[in-house]
Amino acid sequence: MNSDSASLPQVAAALPASAPARFRAVRQQTEALCRPLLPEDTVVQPVIDVSPPKWHLAHTTWFFETFLLREYLPGYAVYHPDYAFLFNSYYNSLGSRVNRADRGTLSRPPLADVYAYRAFVDAQMEQLLALQDTLPAAFQEVFELGLQHEQQHQELLVTDIKYILSTSPLAPAYQPAPPTPPPSAAPAARWLPVPGGVYRIGFQEEGFCFDNELEAHDTYVADFELQNRLVTNAEYLEFMEAGGYRDFRYWLGEGWDLVQQQGWEAPLYWVLHEGSWHRFSHHGLVAVNLAAPVTHISFYEADAYAHWRGCRLPTEQEWEIAARHFGATPAAGTFLESGLYDPQPLSPTAPASQCHQLLGDAWEWTYSAYHPYPGYQRAAGALGEYNGKFMLNQLVLRGGSCATPASHIRLTYRNFFHADKRWQYTGIRLAR
Amino acid sequence: MNSDSASLPQVAAALPASAPARFRAVRQQTEALCRPLLPEDTVVQPVIDVSPPKWHLAHTTWFFETFLLREYLPGYAVYHPDYAFLFNSYYNSLGSRVNRADRGTLSRPPLADVYAYRAFVDAQMEQLLALQDTLPAAFQEVFELGLQHEQQHQELLVTDIKYILSTSPLAPAYQPAPPTPPPSAAPAARWLPVPGGVYRIGFQEEGFCFDNELEAHDTYVADFELQNRLVTNAEYLEFMEAGGYRDFRYWLGEGWDLVQQQGWEAPLYWVLHEGSWHRFSHHGLVAVNLAAPVTHISFYEADAYAHWRGCRLPTEQEWEIAARHFGATPAAGTFLESGLYDPQPLSPTAPASQCHQLLGDAWEWTYSAYHPYPGYQRAAGALGEYNGKFMLNQLVLRGGSCATPASHIRLTYRNFFHADKRWQYTGIRLAR
Amino acid sequence: MNSDSASLPQVAAALPASAPARFRAVRQQTEALCRPLLPEDTVVQPVIDVSPPKWHLAHTTWFFETFLLREYLPGYAVYHPDYAFLFNSYYNSLGSRVNRADRGTLSRPPLADVYAYRAFVDAQMEQLLALQDTLPAAFQEVFELGLQHEQQHQELLVTDIKYILSTSPLAPAYQPAPPTPPPSAAPAARWLPVPGGVYRIGFQEEGFCFDNELEAHDTYVADFELQNRLVTNAEYLEFMEAGGYRDFRYWLGEGWDLVQQQGWEAPLYWVLHEGSWHRFSHHGLVAVNLAAPVTHISFYEADAYAHWRGCRLPTEQEWEIAARHFGATPAAGTFLESGLYDPQPLSPTAPASQCHQLLGDAWEWTYSAYHPYPGYQRAAGALGEYNGKFMLNQLVLRGGSCATPASHIRLTYRNFFHADKRWQYTGIRLAR
Amino acid sequence: MNSDSASLPQVAAALPASAPARFRAVRQQTEALCRPLLPEDTVVQPVIDVSPPKWHLAHTTWFFETFLLREYLPGYAVYHPDYAFLFNSYYNSLGSRVNRADRGTLSRPPLADVYAYRAFVDAQMEQLLALQDTLPAAFQEVFELGLQHEQQHQELLVTDIKYILSTSPLAPAYQPAPPTPPPSAAPAARWLPVPGGVYRIGFQEEGFCFDNELEAHDTYVADFELQNRLVTNAEYLEFMEAGGYRDFRYWLGEGWDLVQQQGWEAPLYWVLHEGSWHRFSHHGLVAVNLAAPVTHISFYEADAYAHWRGCRLPTEQEWEIAARHFGATPAAGTFLESGLYDPQPLSPTAPASQCHQLLGDAWEWTYSAYHPYPGYQRAAGALGEYNGKFMLNQLVLRGGSCATPASHIRLTYRNFFHADKRWQYTGIRLAR
Repeated sequence: MNSDSASLPQVAAALPASAPARFRAVRQQTEALCRPLLPEDTVVQPVIDVSPPKWHLAHTTWFFETFLLREYLPGYAVYHPDYAFLFNSYYNSLGSRVNRADRGTLSRPPLADVYAYRAFVDAQMEQLLALQDTLPAAFQEVFELGLQHEQQHQELLVTDIKYILSTSPLAPAYQPAPPTPPPSAAPAARWLPVPGGVYRIGFQEEGFCFDNELEAHDTYVADFELQNRLVTNAEYLEFMEAGGYRDFRYWLGEGWDLVQQQGWEAPLYWVLHEGSWHRFSHHGLVAVNLAAPVTHISFYEADAYAHWRGCRLPTEQEWEIAARHFGATPAAGTFLESGLYDPQPLSPTAPASQCHQLLGDAWEWTYSAYHPYPGYQRAAGALGEYNGKFMLNQLVLRGGSCATPASHIRLTYRNFFHADKRWQYTGIRLAR
Repeated sequence: MNSDSASLPQVAAALPASAPARFRAVRQQTEALCRPLLPEDTVVQPVIDVSPPKWHLAHTTWFFETFLLREYLPGYAVYHPDYAFLFNSYYNSLGSRVNRADRGTLSRPPLADVYAYRAFVDAQMEQLLALQDTLPAAFQEVFELGLQHEQQHQELLVTDIKYILSTSPLAPAYQPAPPTPPPSAAPAARWLPVPGGVYRIGFQEEGFCFDNELEAHDTYVADFELQNRLVTNAEYLEFMEAGGYRDFRYWLGEGWDLVQQQGWEAPLYWVLHEGSWHRFSHHGLVAVNLAAPVTHISFYEADAYAHWRGCRLPTEQEWEIAARHFGATPAAGTFLESGLYDPQPLSPTAPASQCHQLLGDAWEWTYSAYHPYPGYQRAAGALGEYNGKFMLNQLVLRGGSCATPASHIRLTYRNFFHADKRWQYTGIRLAR
Repeated sequence: MNSDSASLPQVAAALPASAPARFRAVRQQTEALCRPLLPEDTVVQPVIDVSPPKWHLAHTTWFFETFLLREYLPGYAVYHPDYAFLFNSYYNSLGSRVNRADRGTLSRPPLADVYAYRAFVDAQMEQLLALQDTLPAAFQEVFELGLQHEQQHQELLVTDIKYILSTSPLAPAYQPAPPTPPPSAAPAARWLPVPGGVYRIGFQEEGFCFDNELEAHDTYVADFELQNRLVTNAEYLEFMEAGGYRDFRYWLGEGWDLVQQQGWEAPLYWVLHEGSWHRFSHHGLVAVNLAAPVTHISFYEADAYAHWRGCRLPTEQEWEIAARHFGATPAAGTFLESGLYDPQPLSPTAPASQCHQLLGDAWEWTYSAYHPYPGYQRAAGALGEYNGKFMLNQLVLRGGSCATPASHIRLTYRNFFHADKRWQYTGIRLAR
Repeated sequence: MNSDSASLPQVAAALPASAPARFRAVRQQTEALCRPLLPEDTVVQPVIDVSPPKWHLAHTTWFFETFLLREYLPGYAVYHPDYAFLFNSYYNSLGSRVNRADRGTLSRPPLADVYAYRAFVDAQMEQLLALQDTLPAAFQEVFELGLQHEQQHQELLVTDIKYILSTSPLAPAYQPAPPTPPPSAAPAARWLPVPGGVYRIGFQEEGFCFDNELEAHDTYVADFELQNRLVTNAEYLEFMEAGGYRDFRYWLGEGWDLVQQQGWEAPLYWVLHEGSWHRFSHHGLVAVNLAAPVTHISFYEADAYAHWRGCRLPTEQEWEIAARHFGATPAAGTFLESGLYDPQPLSPTAPASQCHQLLGDAWEWTYSAYHPYPGYQRAAGALGEYNGKFMLNQLVLRGGSCATPASHIRLTYRNFFHADKRWQYTGIRLAR
């Protein structure tokens, strides 16, 4: 766990140290996220990417049951014989399962049963954790993976809930809006140089990382510059108003086709309301804050924006090298624990010579394919399907977002999505 | 209303006579059907044909609000400005609406809000009905249509709930199973002759009918014979065991393509369980009752079965002529009010010379296209979209089913579905 | 063969009497139709409905080879072992075959090989016909069917060639345009009454008919009226200019969906060229002749037009009864043999009391489903797949068109297409 | 042109030095490839990737007309006003065009007209080339690009013709088979080490390269090893026989889905014929030569094979570094000019210490995304759409194939295809 690692200073949101306490903290965080929901909200799947919250609650539980209780708790009997079929996500090793596109057709088991399943598994896990000193090292690894896995689903819960509520014309609020801060402009962006050379990237610290962050390896980059903050809504609006969505020259071919087919003309969730741009948020429909970082854009939009500015997106190597170079820490970023669920504007007084918003606020699209690092090895068994089989036709995103748990992020963390996805908190940092 | 008509004798399930009492009875019936459901069950739409129960509850309410309260109640203000968009089914006259395929993506408004909407509209309707003597004749017509419309949705609720619960591997029961009757074989089917000639068909009685039952008109049929009961599961199983699903010669071309694509080899809801045929029902998974009428088959299957037997399906003209000829009444049939939700076996002692099960138990596929009768006129305004625009590429079904309210059926009633639909209680009566 | 029948007077285009001469005449007619084509034109399949001319040439030949030579000519060896796979259309009885949608992907065998195949089969057929006195009655029936089948493909060749050439922006001409007649208006349409009653319809004459015209049977119709000519382009243009394509009230639901999806706003092949309506024809792009019958419209358009006029389409029973009542003959109609490939305007001097254009010029959409007649029996064996398996979700068209061989049409002829098809010469006759 | 460059020694197939002679040589090469085709073969498009040969012939001509004649030849008038619409491939800058999927529906203009178009443009180009000393430098660049572009389409002609002929069950031969060499086994593969370090890759020589080979830049690789020859059919067959196509563990997720959906169980063109593996080739159906390199496999298959062997695919950086390290030249490779259209087995006497088959024979899949090199700039104007807009979701292939003109390949050449494509001559070289 990198919350203990030297490279990431302690943040308020850090998890407790003891395994049972950490387990409880993570499990309760998930349920806290679902508390404002009605049972009806936990069932639907408006698009294939967005899973029903009920499914997230059950699937994360199935993970602990399958990989830990069944393996390590003597005499453990599965809670329900059909749940493996219902709540397996994508593990071929573990047999057949509900089609991903059909998750939103299942009203049963109801939410209350899923909570009962969680309570049962939690109680069994407490028993198992009481035995942890007697268990092999592999137990600790998979236990840690189970916590990290559930944190990943916490981020998905934030973004999936947002999407689910957004489909209703009623624009329901997940929670009341915080007090509106006085309007302010973001400070002008500034270019910060990073010297070229051979750098070592990938996970090199103590503690947990995903297999896709390994092996640490050397890479060469030439001199480059990075902007010292994320692109703002105000800047993105300039692109929109300059006709960026109507000029094919800025776009990759596939992106241009999508713009035509889908009629894109703004980020996801943006609507013109009484003549001004609003966006759907966890507080219902609100005015776009021009000083805040732009989010909910596809890679195609990020790349087209960069083209239009005469810049480009960074590679993941450049991003990681810069993040180390500038000593990025999660301390200043906006994460899940803030409860804000929106990236925050950079303070007008933020020092111009520092590189801001690298961790937290918004995932940053890189122009790097999600491919295996040199020396990458898939794990044996079902967990070998965790990451490796997705290593094609997706792009790496770096830095975490306002929906990521602060204790979950790392400088070396490699998130990945297809280039057309817009429902995550995805943003832009320019390079050149 | 044909519950008062001479041709249909009084049944226990008949509606009360006064308008407010009838309104209350119909509205309560709908809610009673939804009472066993969890909120989660009321949201999902596993296939496009199956609407969420929450939507049925709201849409039938919207109908009264739109066509009666807004038209006739002085000073009425709509309950919610977005509900027309959310709960309009298919009326182009009434503006844009949620895509039919997206009904299952809407978690909001939640079930409780929909019940509040119902309560509000019900209270307003009581006020309006208090004024009914002052209202024009058109009011009475549309009020009656509103009741009949809600009864149609009661049947859809029964079949849609069945489908929704069936998608879960948990095979949840909507209600406990009734005591199992002792096994019995259905009496052998017998052919009953009907003399040919010119007959008058279509609605000719007093009271309510849909516009598609008009105009009454003469038609000529040659001599024909009809079987005196519905085809049973035992008989249909013979077809299955004789390889009926594997021999293209019995099938219409489109039907054979479907059999291949969908892998059909039994009626909908049938599964082989420990070597014997079971079916999903409102009581969960139960053994197939061989004496009961086969249901949940497409027109293609009904037609292929008839072919294999060397017979054919009746036309809708033959069906109606026979039903009058044999004096069919709803008295003996199984309808919604029985609470059984399954067609019932014919009693072994049923008189062989009578024609049974014409009304109730299962809708009978006819080999008649759902086309306008001679002299048919679409109504003016939005209600002109009620029936007329669907008069192509669908087939007429006759007689009502165990999910039809008894007070809703008539000898002249024309139900209609596409040939591939299987989620209704559709069955077979042979002709030759 | 109805060219000899009393009900259809002799036309110039009648086929010769002797079997070998008739065989030669039909086979040469097919090849004459393909003579203006380049090899490239004979390969493509721009939409699934339109088969490559090369395929038509081979498939009609395969029919004679499969059903006659292989059955009746002693010692006959198939011309090529793969041709049955390549040129079987839809006979499940006869094994696997090229997917219908893939006919246009096959460049081989080339056109020259297909002609060689035709020549070989023709020569063998001559030998077989020399033996015809020794052959069973079934031979004569299938031989006749083979000729009629090839005539059906002659009509398809005319319409498929038109479609194929139309896809090129070069608007190539199949043949030079005939001299343009002086412009003239069609005489005003007049309503002609037909008395109701019980009539016998279906094939009752001597000679050949398709199985779908049987059994002849009684039917009852009420009094009705029919217009004495087809609807003209001028009349249809009034519908277009009155906004007919933009008002859902005239349309069946499926039709309105198609209008939206496909952007229909005129008949197939119509284009606005320098401000006036032109159409693609066998002579390239030409001005629309306002006096000529409208063609290339779907059933949905025919029905919407009739609605807009406050009329309706006839049923197939009405059409046939009227055609007999008015003594329709092919003498005055425009057929394939005219070489015009366009329906012709009614002469301004045509007697108003007669019913014109019943046979030839344009197929007339009826509002009758293509279902089996009472007593219809599918033939045994592969030929049982000729008609019966298509008897659902299609509509009957009557009367033949300018692309139908004159010797092929009958008063009782039932053509059938899906409601959305527009590439045949389909037109409108109004009823009320 | 790199045929003159120091890094690539002179091969027999080198192009002449003078511009008119080179132009003629390239243009004639294209037509020579089409000479064995019938007009029918030049029209069809059996899958979207495979363009009709007629279209290739015209599109390459349109390129010279559009980018050179219209720009530089005084008074030039376009040959036909519709040809830009018909033969533009994907240039948005140059207006609307035939949908790519519809290229195979166009029978017109016929092949003869396309050859006339070529002759006309060729004659005009001769006139223009006579003026070349007076033309700006940009002319030379685009002229060179036009030749390279036509060479790319020569390779596509070879592969598209193969696919087109393969769709026929007749298995027609494009040309007679060469004499069969005596069977021999390929020499055992050997691992050759390459030392890690910072290397310069990308085009650094004189002459022509595509913009995607620029800018030359430094990159770091760790020590790695490469096999000294391509994977053979015999080796690939071991993977097949070991159940490689039935075990998800070797596959990327998307690849495994494809294996299921498409039923892949061997390379494209392989069929079991009388119990042994054959493949469709330019000579019809022939036995698989076990000693020859495997080709016609997707990236997914290449990657799964490497996984199964416990190895991996090289990156494009590794490939290029190794190719320079081992001094790869086209001298020993099999290219288009050989007329063989099949990769050739490595000679049993080939020195084991050398790295063979790097250039020619088969394109080698790398595990590198086709992304822009550092400093890459799209060209201004329409030619900016040549490469840049495709730089996502495709993989780089290196080395050229038996269908590539020898004068077209370079060590730095970056070919690119989607991971599922199999109709090119794609093969495998293992790394570790």
